[in-house]
Amino acid sequence: MSQLTGIAASNGIAIAKAYKLAIPDLSFSKEKVEDTNAEIERLTKALDISKSELEKIKEHARTSLGDEHAEIFSAHLLVLSDPELINPIKDKIETDNVNAEFALDETAQMFIQMFETMDNEYMRERAADIKDVTKRVMAHLLEVNFPNPALIDEEVIVIAEDLTPSDTAQLNKQFVQGFTTNIGGRTSHSAIMARSLEIPAVVGTKDITEQAKAGDMLIVDGIDGQVIINPTEDEIASYQQKQEQFEQQKQEWAKLKDEPTVSKDGAHVELVANIGTPNDVEGVMNNGGEGVGLYRTEFLYMGKNELPTEDEQYDAYKSVLEQMGDKPVVVRTLDIGGDKELPYLELPKEMNPFLGYRAIRLCLERDDIFRTQLRALLRASVYGNLKIMFPMIATLDEFRQAKAILLEEKANLTNEGIKVSDDIEVGIMVEIPSTAVIARQFAKEVDFFSIGTNDLIQYTIAADRMNERVSYLYQPYHPAILNLVHNVIEAAHAEGKWAGMCGEMAGDSIAIPILLALGLDEFSMSATSILPARTQIRDLSKEELASYKDQLLGMSTADEVEAFVREKTNQ
Amino acid sequence: MSQLTGIAASNGIAIAKAYKLAIPDLSFSKEKVEDTNAEIERLTKALDISKSELEKIKEHARTSLGDEHAEIFSAHLLVLSDPELINPIKDKIETDNVNAEFALDETAQMFIQMFETMDNEYMRERAADIKDVTKRVMAHLLEVNFPNPALIDEEVIVIAEDLTPSDTAQLNKQFVQGFTTNIGGRTSHSAIMARSLEIPAVVGTKDITEQAKAGDMLIVDGIDGQVIINPTEDEIASYQQKQEQFEQQKQEWAKLKDEPTVSKDGAHVELVANIGTPNDVEGVMNNGGEGVGLYRTEFLYMGKNELPTEDEQYDAYKSVLEQMGDKPVVVRTLDIGGDKELPYLELPKEMNPFLGYRAIRLCLERDDIFRTQLRALLRASVYGNLKIMFPMIATLDEFRQAKAILLEEKANLTNEGIKVSDDIEVGIMVEIPSTAVIARQFAKEVDFFSIGTNDLIQYTIAADRMNERVSYLYQPYHPAILNLVHNVIEAAHAEGKWAGMCGEMAGDSIAIPILLALGLDEFSMSATSILPARTQIRDLSKEELASYKDQLLGMSTADEVEAFVREKTNQ
Repeated sequence: MSQLTGIAASNGIAIAKAYKLAIPDLSFSKEKVEDTNAEIERLTKALDISKSELEKIKEHARTSLGDEHAEIFSAHLLVLSDPELINPIKDKIETDNVNAEFALDETAQMFIQMFETMDNEYMRERAADIKDVTKRVMAHLLEVNFPNPALIDEEVIVIAEDLTPSDTAQLNKQFVQGFTTNIGGRTSHSAIMARSLEIPAVVGTKDITEQAKAGDMLIVDGIDGQVIINPTEDEIASYQQKQEQFEQQKQEWAKLKDEPTVSKDGAHVELVANIGTPNDVEGVMNNGGEGVGLYRTEFLYMGKNELPTEDEQYDAYKSVLEQMGDKPVVVRTLDIGGDKELPYLELPKEMNPFLGYRAIRLCLERDDIFRTQLRALLRASVYGNLKIMFPMIATLDEFRQAKAILLEEKANLTNEGIKVSDDIEVGIMVEIPSTAVIARQFAKEVDFFSIGTNDLIQYTIAADRMNERVSYLYQPYHPAILNLVHNVIEAAHAEGKWAGMCGEMAGDSIAIPILLALGLDEFSMSATSILPARTQIRDLSKEELASYKDQLLGMSTADEVEAFVREKTNQ
Repeated sequence: MSQLTGIAASNGIAIAKAYKLAIPDLSFSKEKVEDTNAEIERLTKALDISKSELEKIKEHARTSLGDEHAEIFSAHLLVLSDPELINPIKDKIETDNVNAEFALDETAQMFIQMFETMDNEYMRERAADIKDVTKRVMAHLLEVNFPNPALIDEEVIVIAEDLTPSDTAQLNKQFVQGFTTNIGGRTSHSAIMARSLEIPAVVGTKDITEQAKAGDMLIVDGIDGQVIINPTEDEIASYQQKQEQFEQQKQEWAKLKDEPTVSKDGAHVELVANIGTPNDVEGVMNNGGEGVGLYRTEFLYMGKNELPTEDEQYDAYKSVLEQMGDKPVVVRTLDIGGDKELPYLELPKEMNPFLGYRAIRLCLERDDIFRTQLRALLRASVYGNLKIMFPMIATLDEFRQAKAILLEEKANLTNEGIKVSDDIEVGIMVEIPSTAVIARQFAKEVDFFSIGTNDLIQYTIAADRMNERVSYLYQPYHPAILNLVHNVIEAAHAEGKWAGMCGEMAGDSIAIPILLALGLDEFSMSATSILPARTQIRDLSKEELASYKDQLLGMSTADEVEAFVREKTNQ
């Protein structure tokens, strides 16, 4: 046996056989064929199998994850039915007397190269689709196994270099017990997905795919970030025990599902969830969420070829608001750009996309897009407790402009005789240092703050959290972050407003005591983190923690902060 | 006549004919040649003319700008003498019976493509060199004029899309009266060079190269950012008057060359200069600089194929220190990465280089490079008043590590019997928000702060200043910037340390009253900004300005700040 240490990305223990999610060897040789009809037949068969697999996967994604996630596979199916791609392959087999593998590869490569060199993001996406699909068809021609995580029908732990959105869209919770990857961090896509699916996961192990082979027995400890390959009987027994304890703990947590979140000394805070689609609301309710602290609306815009209509958006917002009843739902307006591209908007390539044209910057310029979203939100507002939040606000001018547009659209709707709630709070994400620094000025004009720590940390420390060479600088406990968070909370309270946090930090067991000390009102996190956080908070004394506030704010390094909190809270 | 508004990049008025710095039409057709010897002869002649031009340009760059700037042309000359490039061209002429233009283009393209597709920054640089040089040779083959700004021998104003480092290295101050470009801002390379050369310049006019043609009469007003094309007699007369006034003003300024910098109410501050090479020291002295506030050491590392040796660096540092006598010289250790690449280090491509692996982050990992520089600095320290400054410090850990390495090298030198000054202050650039926020913690350990506003602003507001789509967010007067600057100054003073500023903001006439109000001790700027700044400060009352401090720090927007300062200081 051997043991790897990675990043605990999603709670829980999984014990099962390894399922390796890797592209098989697809090499082939060019061959001369006489019977071109038989060869075309072979191609047609490979295409048909691929299509029927993709249909199944798409259906699976639709039922388990929702329409948005299924769109990726619609695009792939379109490629397989496109005569402009398929006919040239058949022609090549006939004219050049070559095997289907060679004809497929030559033709696909030509299209891929043509699309990739176009200065057009949309066409480059199509190139990626063709690449993906060609691999699947090639595997069927070569009669080698192509990994279809959607079609897994025994209990496994998936191991992979990394999991793409299309991979995670395929994972069936019934069979996939856990997963572990070579790369990624707590805020990477696969980690967020694991928590949303409630599957134990350890990411960033560096070389699990090298260390383990398919069929190896694995233990994934998503609590402590450990992966054990071919464990001994004793280890299995001991982890089964840990697994049971975790299940018991989950049952303990579950008892707090309908309890308020109150500290040992009676201070009340709100624990709410981050969601991406209306389907996520179920998980929020099951995990005792007191509301939605961050509804990321980007999914509505992604994986399709055009902007969502006002009605499509209205339906989604209404569904979330209705499901949540009178619980608050904070909807963030479109935060696209940076690492989140929308191919059909054809945004310019930027040298530093994280410091570029995105979110509110884009929405204020492309106010057609912005107004459509705001109208959909305003129309849906009568179905629940809506709060609207603008992302990436760096100046008061931006907030004033965005709010003015919102009020204009509200007036337009009222003039059109459409009912709009009069009770919508309008706030901002605090994720840019300038806004955290002058929170005092902002607090006079906004209804609430929600601190977006994922971005705030990377801007404050000037380190791209996706860049491995500097990710060690992504330090949530950096005293500068604590000081900025403190400044935001104080500024809100001075004006009688509330301050929340919707970054990963809000659900972190070291950060929670600090945030309680600083007076944070609302903690928004992955749904599955809510009950553990509630449990933790019920054991903490806010007054005691608050007495350490000045000490914490005056510390020199993140390590010093962490050690102090661990000591004071026995972690 | 027509008038364009751009960004005033370098003070002064220029009136002269336009010289268009643009690549001529280099199109050609493929032709069959019989007399291949004559064709090879034609090629050789074009190569020879190109070489002798490049020799002249290189010599010019060396004498007027220093060795570092001349290196670019050494690289170009190497290309022209490389048999691996030249012989295939000759072979092609002989074997294929084609004209020299076609043979040159085909061969060069082949090399360019080969080098460009290599995943190696150094080879891509070589591809750029070949491109540059090929154009020159092609122009001589086609007998069309190739622009050689170095060879200008009449009074002109250079107009161009933008000026590259190799263009500016060629400008002869004797003849080039001014320049104006389509793109760029106050902190772009061409703007910084214009100030260092003391040539009036207006950048960012958007389309001066479209609006004006070669030979058109131009007025470049680098004071107010205006360019007039084919002015009337009256306009010329009026601008000649403005020019004379400016010259008179310069004479007035010059009287303050040896005066201290004192406000109307007797408060003393220090006005020092930003420099890039030992040659820049002359300009500092001529402009009454009280020291060097930022010696950017990157030039030593740029435009060459390998790292500078310890001795090369020692010579440069010693030269600056000796020239400056007992005046302070703040040397910033290597700040490479981000937009400043060193091809031979083969750094990885990054998605967000401004948030990436650069400056101290690189130096702490590649401590071989760092130690060499520190040794050179320590050895030179006995020749003047050296202060060492680390760039891009984001955490106290980084400062502690860097200082420990410095002390180690000092001990090593002492052990080797080499004399090192015992009086070297060690400080940091404050250009990352985290450091500005916890300046109080840093102030206990550093000897001084120098606020680097160019980066601090872009990180604090999360807007890449080079990205046109968001450059409107690059706001030096954003109240968040003022609050961070204030925090840094207060923190320094509380520990008896000093705080300076070495970004563009330090020389800005709106910022100067604010910085005086906030208590800044040292202002480091382009040498040519020093005397105007001294003049301005002598007219300001620090006490009066300080009385507005809380008001300024509590303002909501940059516009509000600017309007207030303009009103209070009659600007």
